[in-house]
Amino acid sequence: MENPVVVEITRGDLVESFHRGAFALVDGAGAIVVSAGDIERPVFPRSAVKLLQAIPLVETGAAAYFGLDDKDLSLACASHSGEPAHVRRAAAMLAKAGLDGGVLECGCHWPFDAAVARDLARSGETLTALHNNCSGKHAGFVLTAVQRGETTAGYVGPNHPVQLRAKAVIEDLVGHSLNRDVCGTDGCSIPTYAAPLRDFAGAFAKIATGKGVGAPRAEAGRALMRACMAEPFEMSGTGRACRRLMEAEPGKVFAKTGAEGVFCGALPELGLGFALKIDDGATRASEALVAALIAKALESEDAALAARFAAMATHDMVNWEGIRTGDVRAILPQRG
Amino acid sequence: MENPVVVEITRGDLVESFHRGAFALVDGAGAIVVSAGDIERPVFPRSAVKLLQAIPLVETGAAAYFGLDDKDLSLACASHSGEPAHVRRAAAMLAKAGLDGGVLECGCHWPFDAAVARDLARSGETLTALHNNCSGKHAGFVLTAVQRGETTAGYVGPNHPVQLRAKAVIEDLVGHSLNRDVCGTDGCSIPTYAAPLRDFAGAFAKIATGKGVGAPRAEAGRALMRACMAEPFEMSGTGRACRRLMEAEPGKVFAKTGAEGVFCGALPELGLGFALKIDDGATRASEALVAALIAKALESEDAALAARFAAMATHDMVNWEGIRTGDVRAILPQRG
Repeated sequence: MENPVVVEITRGDLVESFHRGAFALVDGAGAIVVSAGDIERPVFPRSAVKLLQAIPLVETGAAAYFGLDDKDLSLACASHSGEPAHVRRAAAMLAKAGLDGGVLECGCHWPFDAAVARDLARSGETLTALHNNCSGKHAGFVLTAVQRGETTAGYVGPNHPVQLRAKAVIEDLVGHSLNRDVCGTDGCSIPTYAAPLRDFAGAFAKIATGKGVGAPRAEAGRALMRACMAEPFEMSGTGRACRRLMEAEPGKVFAKTGAEGVFCGALPELGLGFALKIDDGATRASEALVAALIAKALESEDAALAARFAAMATHDMVNWEGIRTGDVRAILPQRG
Repeated sequence: MENPVVVEITRGDLVESFHRGAFALVDGAGAIVVSAGDIERPVFPRSAVKLLQAIPLVETGAAAYFGLDDKDLSLACASHSGEPAHVRRAAAMLAKAGLDGGVLECGCHWPFDAAVARDLARSGETLTALHNNCSGKHAGFVLTAVQRGETTAGYVGPNHPVQLRAKAVIEDLVGHSLNRDVCGTDGCSIPTYAAPLRDFAGAFAKIATGKGVGAPRAEAGRALMRACMAEPFEMSGTGRACRRLMEAEPGKVFAKTGAEGVFCGALPELGLGFALKIDDGATRASEALVAALIAKALESEDAALAARFAAMATHDMVNWEGIRTGDVRAILPQRG
């Protein structure tokens, strides 16, 4: 099945490049509200399901045991920008268990945001695993292991209890088992399991509505969602799309990006969940499409707010001299 | 017309993302040797035709007048990485006309290569237009204007003699006029004209063979091609794909990247030209596809060399800990 064009990049009067993709917006019963493209093909959700992976941190009681606040919980769901405040908070979370960044197994990488990376280079500070965009999620993994009395070494392995718990939560929420044939290794070395977009959208709708999932699990998910929506900087960073989407009208939207053009999220008040993937993995396209999809979800409920999200689905492209060269624009095909 | 999948990105046992595109490999008479996808749709060649835009620098006699050597000519065709040697050479080219970087109208941007950008940030040096990846091309534009007695101010405008000469060369080589309806503004503020991939491939085949183009123009193009193949660092930079492709077997391949997933080039000894574009504009895909296309062009002439290029069309993807997560692999569909 051929996915439709969902984002166009123009230059002058022509379409220069275009992105294909698929998306699903579903309700708490799993019914499709709107979709396009192949939503049954297994896709790796990557970091777009960090919130689901953080549910055991709350469910086990580790978050309460270590006294984590909303900013900590948001960082545990984050693909953060590695800004100083993110790094300090990840270190502080580990310090609650008497640990430091040396326990992390996510690897080191320079912050993705070029300006943040240049600031770090100028500072002369040493790059550590705490700068990794996943360090908050990993700090949450480590705290859970410590609270459960498990060894932390090897916590990224697919058979470590930390990863088995995360997998079990996702299996419960997507509604089927996730086996080795759909398992890949993520950028931060933990397993990532592919599943249909329809099922990931359904997982977030279940959390939003509490339908089709146990009450403690739904409440743990909602606590994380509230934390992210209240403290979006911790979950993303300066100028980032996830933050802009969640700050547009606080409490209305939870949205989380994932590598290779993925977004997952929910509109908690409407009881809807969504998931999308750009075929080619482009973030510029996933960020435009998610805004268009949120606008679509809101249009019958709140036309003014929908218009604000629709405006975020299109933006000018400018060159180094600030001259407009074209635009990026999401196109929301009808169900296909 | 739907372009075929030309590059796949795998994770574990699954294809995570994929890129569609089109390509054409043609001979000096314009006959297609191999192609796939829609090669008649107008695409913006962007920086992949910098060599064509530099032909007037040679044709006018400006290159000889200012005593430019192969490294200068290569830089005049470059999307360079903004490394210190690139910046110094661009400044030295302008100094030959008593000018400095202040004359450039390409704008400033941080080097695309993250490590180069961090080094520049650490150095505390001020970012200038000389760091722009196009500064060598613009230095060539300025030198041509000076040698012709034209004002340099506004040399990026579509009606300045510099841009009219570049346009006339490209029109001659693609074999048709390029009008306002296919004109966009490039990243460095000069006009870029869209034309079919078939025609851009033909333009480079004409230069390689001297067929269908005046002898002085073909010789000017070949002089630039020889300069780029002899001095590929100046045309690209440390670790860059264009350099790797041209250093694999010096003199066999000319290859130049362009923004939004474009490559143009030639196999001079075989009298072939090529052009390709990835629909979604991804460089990771254009770099894999160009290696596969060069391998295809060489397979009946030099199987061993073809195998080396084929090996460059696939590479592992590794995560921050160096663990293999999957691969990038070009797929060369049969003519479609």
